[in-house]
Amino acid sequence: MKIGATHYRSVRVAPGGWRVEIFDQTLLPWQVETLQLADEHQVAEAITTMRVRGAPLIGAVAAYGLALAVRRDPTDAAVEAAAAMLAATRPTAINLRWALDTMLARLRNQPRAARAGIAYAVAAEIADDDVETCRRIGEHTLPLIRAVAAARGQVNILTHCNAGWLATVDYGTALSGIFQAHDAGIPVHVWVDETRPRNQGAALTAFELHGHGVSHKIVADNAGGHLMQHGQVDMCIVGTDRVTRNGDVANKIGTYLKALAARDNDVPFHVACPHSTIDWTLDSGAAIPIEERSEAEVTDMTGQLADGSIARMRIANPGSKAANPAFDVTPARLVTSIITERGVTEASATGLARLYPEHAAR
Amino acid sequence: MKIGATHYRSVRVAPGGWRVEIFDQTLLPWQVETLQLADEHQVAEAITTMRVRGAPLIGAVAAYGLALAVRRDPTDAAVEAAAAMLAATRPTAINLRWALDTMLARLRNQPRAARAGIAYAVAAEIADDDVETCRRIGEHTLPLIRAVAAARGQVNILTHCNAGWLATVDYGTALSGIFQAHDAGIPVHVWVDETRPRNQGAALTAFELHGHGVSHKIVADNAGGHLMQHGQVDMCIVGTDRVTRNGDVANKIGTYLKALAARDNDVPFHVACPHSTIDWTLDSGAAIPIEERSEAEVTDMTGQLADGSIARMRIANPGSKAANPAFDVTPARLVTSIITERGVTEASATGLARLYPEHAAR
Repeated sequence: MKIGATHYRSVRVAPGGWRVEIFDQTLLPWQVETLQLADEHQVAEAITTMRVRGAPLIGAVAAYGLALAVRRDPTDAAVEAAAAMLAATRPTAINLRWALDTMLARLRNQPRAARAGIAYAVAAEIADDDVETCRRIGEHTLPLIRAVAAARGQVNILTHCNAGWLATVDYGTALSGIFQAHDAGIPVHVWVDETRPRNQGAALTAFELHGHGVSHKIVADNAGGHLMQHGQVDMCIVGTDRVTRNGDVANKIGTYLKALAARDNDVPFHVACPHSTIDWTLDSGAAIPIEERSEAEVTDMTGQLADGSIARMRIANPGSKAANPAFDVTPARLVTSIITERGVTEASATGLARLYPEHAAR
Repeated sequence: MKIGATHYRSVRVAPGGWRVEIFDQTLLPWQVETLQLADEHQVAEAITTMRVRGAPLIGAVAAYGLALAVRRDPTDAAVEAAAAMLAATRPTAINLRWALDTMLARLRNQPRAARAGIAYAVAAEIADDDVETCRRIGEHTLPLIRAVAAARGQVNILTHCNAGWLATVDYGTALSGIFQAHDAGIPVHVWVDETRPRNQGAALTAFELHGHGVSHKIVADNAGGHLMQHGQVDMCIVGTDRVTRNGDVANKIGTYLKALAARDNDVPFHVACPHSTIDWTLDSGAAIPIEERSEAEVTDMTGQLADGSIARMRIANPGSKAANPAFDVTPARLVTSIITERGVTEASATGLARLYPEHAAR
């Protein structure tokens, strides 16, 4: 996607051919700052602190992180240790493990001297695959949006967290179809959930939609149910950090509440999900580990003061503690459809197996 | 309730006998600052800007606001105009209208010279009634909490927004029973919804619970569903801004989402409601006007910088707009019970009529 007139991917190899370049997303929307990562530890730090976030992007960046590690030390022990270290950075998103497993499978039994080259090539493949996957998810989302537009004129879409191009290598998952609909001249309007505590909606999704010229309004996470009760939401589209075999969906904390409201108001609830986000090893969402993050994410907030400077401040009662589960699991029964690069399916073991017959058997 | 060793009501007549004294709640929890209001316009400003908020407290403060107006000009025209002006400050909470109607009914046909004295006396009655009402709501809540404690030991209660003593003249509604349970030695722990966009949970409820020594943790509004899915919430107790004849509940935006999650997880969802919050003129919640507040409440936030100063900063993408509906309506079907000063009832026309037979007929 573009910032101004320049096209960017959310992760790329820096000029020189080996460092990995990202936007520091903790500075967005205030500053668009590029960060170069020189080794796997810097990559791990960037993932842990959410300088890069979004399940698909985490996968691609971790793949490049492993390539950086291989470049320094291509021995089996070093590569396995680096992969384990990177895998431990975020527990919920499955793309991380998928990308690292893909890398390891391609590196094993290769001569050491060839490994760095292979690693960069496979990381690039993973990134390219994500781009094409997201583009196709958008293509499969477009008819759903077009159908609402045909019936009602304007299309009001609610989304939670950020599942745009900043969460992926390019295009986005949930937002890919929205960008494509906008480009096709369909009048879309997006309700952007603020997405406390990290505000990825107010900070990142709004930044993306504003940059692309898509009509949108930010709302408190609390508002979505009310909007749905009053017919102001035609569909919800969200991304996901892990989908299990049965169609259960782990996503940013609060997604479950929106799915409940959507069901209570007959609003379709769609989940945009690349193949790399499906965990074929788990039968249901109950087994997904839910990351508990720092309470400071709840009690403190970053923003821009009137003088333009970026500051951090405490917003909660001094002396009070906070809890911060970062994800929740929306049961498949509340999901209208899962949209993957292969098409649209019901959220069920049968539906997913139909799209991915190669994974249907254990 | 106490701040330190001193007992305060949330509204009182200042020394001197006529000005009205409140805490400026927009400065809490950072500064405990008393504000003296000298006329009805200052009262209206305090209500509009949420220096005082909470449906029961708004009612009592508006009553004193009318007393201030009567003191300056006791003519019928002036008193009616002041009441209309005060009534227009907040559209959703019904206590405001109830208190002003109560005042007007007692002032009409009284000699002008007697009106100021009557007005202050009736406002004091309204405040005293609220204190006693809230105390009794707590008494009726206590057995519900005690029953959970008997079964499970610890009691985990989730609450939304602030329905403590700062939202009333004293004690609170939803928190009254929690304070009483704590005082009775029952091990209660409260999940405090942050309550975006105004953060009344993180700022005010946490301040009250911390001040009273009640175990609590602040959570993002997004977290409640996840906590309920994992058995970490034994009951929800919230306040309300207006309950209609059929038991529909208007309350702070986001309450509906928690009620949906409570239903989906078989968690009891209780609404603490003084008689002054019941709107006997409306048959259902669909008719309740929902206040739309400034978008700056969503895009900007107030907090405390590291140097201790209080600052306001923008937290949303520059250039993006926001919408800010301040309340939502939870349908009676999702409410386990309504707790009033007269007891606990199901949320239905029958249940409310049984508690208030004098309002059952039209």
